Amino acid sequence: MTEKTKLIAPRLPRGFEDRTPGEIAAVGAMIDKIKAVYERYGFDPVETPLLEYTETLGKFLPDTDRPNAGVFSLQDDDEQWMSLRYDLTAPLARYFAANFETLPKPFRSYRQGYVFRNEKPGPGRFRQFMQFDADTVGAAGPEADAEMCMMMADVMDALGLAGKYVVKVNNRKVLDGVLEAAGAVGAEQKLAALRAIDKFDKFGAEGVSLLLGAGRKDESGDFTKGAGLNQSGIDTVWGYLDAAQHYDLDGGKRTADNRSTVLGWRDILGSSQIGTDGVAELLTIADSIEVSGYADRIQITPEVVRGLEYYTGPVFEIELTFKVQNEKGQDVVFGSVGGGGRYDGLVSRFRREPVPATGFSIGVSRLANALKLTGNLGASEPTGPVVVLVMDKDQMAGYQAMVSELRKAGIRAEMFLGNTKNFGKQVAYADKRNSPIVIIEGSQERADGKVQVKDLIAGKQAAEGITDNAEWKAARPGQFEINRQDLVAEVQKLLSEQ
Amino acid sequence: MTEKTKLIAPRLPRGFEDRTPGEIAAVGAMIDKIKAVYERYGFDPVETPLLEYTETLGKFLPDTDRPNAGVFSLQDDDEQWMSLRYDLTAPLARYFAANFETLPKPFRSYRQGYVFRNEKPGPGRFRQFMQFDADTVGAAGPEADAEMCMMMADVMDALGLAGKYVVKVNNRKVLDGVLEAAGAVGAEQKLAALRAIDKFDKFGAEGVSLLLGAGRKDESGDFTKGAGLNQSGIDTVWGYLDAAQHYDLDGGKRTADNRSTVLGWRDILGSSQIGTDGVAELLTIADSIEVSGYADRIQITPEVVRGLEYYTGPVFEIELTFKVQNEKGQDVVFGSVGGGGRYDGLVSRFRREPVPATGFSIGVSRLANALKLTGNLGASEPTGPVVVLVMDKDQMAGYQAMVSELRKAGIRAEMFLGNTKNFGKQVAYADKRNSPIVIIEGSQERADGKVQVKDLIAGKQAAEGITDNAEWKAARPGQFEINRQDLVAEVQKLLSEQ
Repeated sequence: MTEKTKLIAPRLPRGFEDRTPGEIAAVGAMIDKIKAVYERYGFDPVETPLLEYTETLGKFLPDTDRPNAGVFSLQDDDEQWMSLRYDLTAPLARYFAANFETLPKPFRSYRQGYVFRNEKPGPGRFRQFMQFDADTVGAAGPEADAEMCMMMADVMDALGLAGKYVVKVNNRKVLDGVLEAAGAVGAEQKLAALRAIDKFDKFGAEGVSLLLGAGRKDESGDFTKGAGLNQSGIDTVWGYLDAAQHYDLDGGKRTADNRSTVLGWRDILGSSQIGTDGVAELLTIADSIEVSGYADRIQITPEVVRGLEYYTGPVFEIELTFKVQNEKGQDVVFGSVGGGGRYDGLVSRFRREPVPATGFSIGVSRLANALKLTGNLGASEPTGPVVVLVMDKDQMAGYQAMVSELRKAGIRAEMFLGNTKNFGKQVAYADKRNSPIVIIEGSQERADGKVQVKDLIAGKQAAEGITDNAEWKAARPGQFEINRQDLVAEVQKLLSEQ
Repeated sequence: MTEKTKLIAPRLPRGFEDRTPGEIAAVGAMIDKIKAVYERYGFDPVETPLLEYTETLGKFLPDTDRPNAGVFSLQDDDEQWMSLRYDLTAPLARYFAANFETLPKPFRSYRQGYVFRNEKPGPGRFRQFMQFDADTVGAAGPEADAEMCMMMADVMDALGLAGKYVVKVNNRKVLDGVLEAAGAVGAEQKLAALRAIDKFDKFGAEGVSLLLGAGRKDESGDFTKGAGLNQSGIDTVWGYLDAAQHYDLDGGKRTADNRSTVLGWRDILGSSQIGTDGVAELLTIADSIEVSGYADRIQITPEVVRGLEYYTGPVFEIELTFKVQNEKGQDVVFGSVGGGGRYDGLVSRFRREPVPATGFSIGVSRLANALKLTGNLGASEPTGPVVVLVMDKDQMAGYQAMVSELRKAGIRAEMFLGNTKNFGKQVAYADKRNSPIVIIEGSQERADGKVQVKDLIAGKQAAEGITDNAEWKAARPGQFEINRQDLVAEVQKLLSEQ
């Protein structure tokens, strides 16, 4: 390559990122814990390709009302469009339909992997990110939904988050019934009313009332058009939100149990068939949760809406309840790290008969972030290798032999393979790699059948007490001489002591 | 969804495939073993995104002389081209350049993940497949290459393939020197001569001679144009191929050690500077291998060429030596499951200074395939869950409570969540899931505080001796009654006995 060649900038597209050894190890340990819970619940892994036909994935993106929501697509050489998967649910529907005859039914699977969104990236918002899903396809009853909620709770407990989360449950049929009873008509008005309910956590009671009615002006003066319900309609929605004094509006405290919350809704929704169906499902879920001992962690609650268009029944969300500071320095609850619900229509895109299904998705990066904040994310940096330094360039076969001996004994080890002219750089390399020990063999040691072992961990501790350079050189903390033939045994001994 | 809606076919694009639980578990176990070796050699994991700018990945595809070789590319919303990575080396070069200031040097990393080739798929040839690479960037000496070869050998040993593989080593500089000495001029003639050498395994001595000269006609009458070397040039190449009577042409047996092979080449290449450099590197590698005890598994050999254009020095290949039948029913050696080499030019696309690098890549699916053939791939199908059957639809909360008790004790368990009308279908489901035990509680058992435990494994064994249906019903092999309160303890006991 000549000097004149234009250099290429080693950059990544926006919204994509590299992962370091520490992140990979920590997230890997987290994923293993989640897997163990999924498997205990009888779920088995399945993996689908990252690229699929655009047609088979469909357009079930969350928040499709956001203008730049989208997928990464390209054309195959036969002109057919393919897309990078945007979630792990659409490919599951295709997989289940393709293998319908041979799969056990109900079909329980978990899937972990990257998904892609061709959206505007931002802080904590990536265009490639990892999801970890579990779904049951072919189970129509609300018991399957209850199980999903209990599994989410067990996952949070397994990750050390006991007492720091709540699994919130609602039902799209109940919401449909509420909208019906409130006199909302047409997709637009219903969507606006759902958005208003969804904003309960953010804007509180007054804000929601405004958004249900004419609209709301925020602090900056921007006006959001409301759902335009009349006062009777707004009262109906409030009856739903208030039904069980679910929220103490000051402290977010719960004052009613799941069963009485749902019974309160039943009274409001008596006239709506779909609402009544939803209430019956939630009562079954409440019983399942109660009898299995999860009522303290799973709460049926009115404000969970979920953005995805394809949900047809129960919906759920895992909310982490501890406080963090947002960009403005305000204390806010950490919020959602996953969710899901029942989607009975997704598989029937491929088959005539209806295929009931329910499942949920965990946002892996966001959950890892939460665990970092609570101190529940595992060890980060890997322990480095024993480094054999190269003192004499013409003796490298001999240094290599030492490394091979150490490796054969199962010890993580390497010979320094960089520029060996500068001894200090070799030691700096070992430091940077978190190396526990370096091995030094100069010509004198070689002649005597000896090697120097330098304990970098003890050395660092000892060096902290030494301020004078000359003193340090004289003390050579943590360094000692051994017989060359005892190399493996001595290193093993020192490693076990460290 | 109405009956009139056009159904979508649940199909995958050609060259893409789903992975089942058995495959995922087996390949996962294989990957863990490879990882352990890489980490013992001092390598740490790194992960890069699947999409990158096309410009940063460059066009270093293998076999770029094949017409439909290519990548999957798409344009970002700012019109810049992005591509799915086609290997794990080009992204590493970008990563190293981007993090040059902070990374330890030499930088040892391993990377595992999917890569994509927009090529014509075929049997065993996919457009999405997994690679598992290890690379050292910033190490100029052949000791780093020797280490790669030893690590590949240790990986094969760790996978149980001892005695069934050879790591073959050559040097592009030696090949350049041979071509120089043979009078090959111009890129085209050199490429044709390299291709001829590469065909040694396939066409034998006579075929190679023809391809080095005027050309070769195959059985079907198709003519392949040769490199067009004159007789003296062909003799030089043959001197190289024969240098150490490397191959007994009848049986593929080796008759010279690494050092004498290379010394034979030195005599031929005396006049070529680049050839002499390559010989010196290979002598160092031979010493390293010898002193570390790998000479029986790593062989310096003349016919390894490697397709990738970017190799600049030593090249290596892992060849599995056991025989398999090809599509035509002929016995052939299994062949390559990975390889690599030194690529000193790849990082300098991003930086002014030269950055030496060496590494190798394992084809994960192909290696898994090989392990399946040798019986070294781990257990395939997962053990199924204990299944609690649903005998009374109005008692599901009670069945759910049993499942929750079992799960809390760490037992893999589930309630049957499908259509419960047909008892036989529930048992068939448990069978299909490889369930070890089913739990049955009808109204009589419930009244008595009992449950039925059905040992499906013992049941199957016992049933094998029973040919009569009435006899089977009377014996009910493997089924017994326990107290409901002993459920967890009895299931634990039975599972440990199974």
